[in-house]
Amino acid sequence: MSMVIRDPRELFAHCERARHGGARIGFVPTMGALHDGHLALVDEAVRRGATQSVVSIFVNPLQFGPSEDFSRYPRTFEDDLARCTARGVDVVYAPSPETMYPPGFQTHVEVERVTTRWEGAFRPTHFRGVTTVVTKLLLAVGPCVAVFGRKDYQQWRTLDRLVHDLALPIEIVGMPTVREPDGLALSSRNRYLDGERRVRALAIASGLRQAHDLYRGGERAPETLSGVVRAAVLAAFDRIDYVEAVDPETLEPLSGASDEVLILVAAHLGATRLIDNMHLGHDARP
Amino acid sequence: MSMVIRDPRELFAHCERARHGGARIGFVPTMGALHDGHLALVDEAVRRGATQSVVSIFVNPLQFGPSEDFSRYPRTFEDDLARCTARGVDVVYAPSPETMYPPGFQTHVEVERVTTRWEGAFRPTHFRGVTTVVTKLLLAVGPCVAVFGRKDYQQWRTLDRLVHDLALPIEIVGMPTVREPDGLALSSRNRYLDGERRVRALAIASGLRQAHDLYRGGERAPETLSGVVRAAVLAAFDRIDYVEAVDPETLEPLSGASDEVLILVAAHLGATRLIDNMHLGHDARP
Repeated sequence: MSMVIRDPRELFAHCERARHGGARIGFVPTMGALHDGHLALVDEAVRRGATQSVVSIFVNPLQFGPSEDFSRYPRTFEDDLARCTARGVDVVYAPSPETMYPPGFQTHVEVERVTTRWEGAFRPTHFRGVTTVVTKLLLAVGPCVAVFGRKDYQQWRTLDRLVHDLALPIEIVGMPTVREPDGLALSSRNRYLDGERRVRALAIASGLRQAHDLYRGGERAPETLSGVVRAAVLAAFDRIDYVEAVDPETLEPLSGASDEVLILVAAHLGATRLIDNMHLGHDARP
Repeated sequence: MSMVIRDPRELFAHCERARHGGARIGFVPTMGALHDGHLALVDEAVRRGATQSVVSIFVNPLQFGPSEDFSRYPRTFEDDLARCTARGVDVVYAPSPETMYPPGFQTHVEVERVTTRWEGAFRPTHFRGVTTVVTKLLLAVGPCVAVFGRKDYQQWRTLDRLVHDLALPIEIVGMPTVREPDGLALSSRNRYLDGERRVRALAIASGLRQAHDLYRGGERAPETLSGVVRAAVLAAFDRIDYVEAVDPETLEPLSGASDEVLILVAAHLGATRLIDNMHLGHDARP
C-alpha cells in the first residue's frame, strides 16, 4: 500500500532521505477525487525516470473563490488511496489545511502576466492560491520531475514559468488531456453532472473536434476556429465564461492567422463549471 | 581566497555537493559594500554550526524604487572579496541581474501584513523585491542557517515569516546592529555622508540612547519614548519618514504602555536616507 504521510516535517524528512539514497522523485500534486487522468500523470513521472513517486492530495482552500465549490468539492480519500496503491505510488501526502497554512500565514507566490487572462480573470485569486501551494509542495518534496495535466493548460504554463523564474531544478511536464471514449475531458467535477447535463457537456469536445477538422482543412483564422467552438458550447451550456483562440505560449489572444492555435473554453452547466482546451499546431495532438 | 561563483547552476551544484558531503551551509545575503556589520553575520553563521559559508553580493534592482539610489549604490567588489577572503568565507556568489531575472521573469514572492507599514509604506515595492530575491537565493544555496542584520529589523521579521510560511528548513537569525564607537549604525550608505552630515547623522543614535535611558528609568509610554527620538532627529535631519514606537513582534503601533517596545526610525540627510531602530525590552540590548 502507498505510504500515507500527513505531517510536512515527516514528508520533508522522508523525501530528503530518499534523495540522499539516490532516488529520483516524481511528483503529482492533486486535489484528490482521482481519475485516470491523474493516474496517467503518475505513469508519466515513472516513464521520465522517477524511482519514487509522491502524489499529494490536498483540496487547497486558497485557490477557491468565495462563491466557488470548495466545500462541496469531492473528497474521496479511501478510493484515491486505493487507486494510488494499485498504481504503485510510493507516498500519498495528505496534509490538513491547518498544517499547510499555520496561524498568521501571510506569504504568497505570484506569477504575473501568464495568469492575467482567462482563468485568472474569472477566478481572481485562483492562480495565487495554486502557485503558493505548489511552491510549498515542490519545496517540501524536492522532486526531479513534476507532472501536470494540460486540461488545466494555463495552470501548467504558469507553473512552468514559476519553476523557471525561481530557478528550481525541476522538470515540469504537461500531459495531454485524457478523455472519455465520447470525448469528455476527464475531470473530478464531471461527477457533478447528472444524466442530461452529462450529454450536454459533450458540446465542448464536439466543438473542439469541429475546430480541429477545420484546422486540418487549412483554416487558420482564429475567430473562425474559436467561432465553431463557441457556437457549439452556446447551444448546450447555460453560460460561457470564455471561448478564445490564443497563442499557446503567451496565452495572449491571436490577432491574425496562425499555425499555432490554442482554443480555451470555460463554461457553466447549472452550478458546474467545466474547462477544456485544444492545441492546434504542427506537433499538436487532437 | 573565497571561491567566486557567478552562475546560478554552478552555485546550486556546488552547494548540493557540499550538503551531500555533510556540510552545514551558513548563508549571508548582502548587496556588497561590505562593512564589519556584514562580517559579524558571517561569524555568527559559523558560531551557529555552519561548516561552509556562502556570502551573496547582489545589488538587487527589484528592491529599489524608481527614484531611489540603485544606480549610485556603492559597488566595491574587489574590496568585498578581500574582506570575505580575510574572514574565511568559502563562497562569494555574485550573479548578474540578467541571470537572476532572465527575460520574461514574472514571479514574485510576497509577505503581507508585516510588510505593510514603515519601510513597506515609504518604499512600496521594496519588500516584494527583497522577498523574491531572498527566496531565490535561499533555494539555490540550501543553507541550514541564514543570518540577517537587525538594522533592517522589518526585513528580518519579514524573512523570518517567509521561511516559516514556506516551511523551509532554515534557521533565520537576526543579529544586533553593529555601531561605530560614536553610535552610528554601520550601513553601506554611510559612505554617502560628508563630514558635516556624518556629524548630524549621530542624532538618531543619540535620540535612541535618550529613549533607552528613559526606558531604564521606568518610562513605558510609547509616545514619550518615540518623542525624544523624534525631537532629536527633527533637529538634525532634513526630513523624517517615520519615528515610531511599535510592537517588536507585529510591528503594529503600540496603543499603550508596554514593556516591549521597538523604536523605528527612517530619515533623510540630503539625498541619503538612513534607518535605525532600538529594541527596549527585558532581553533587549541597547
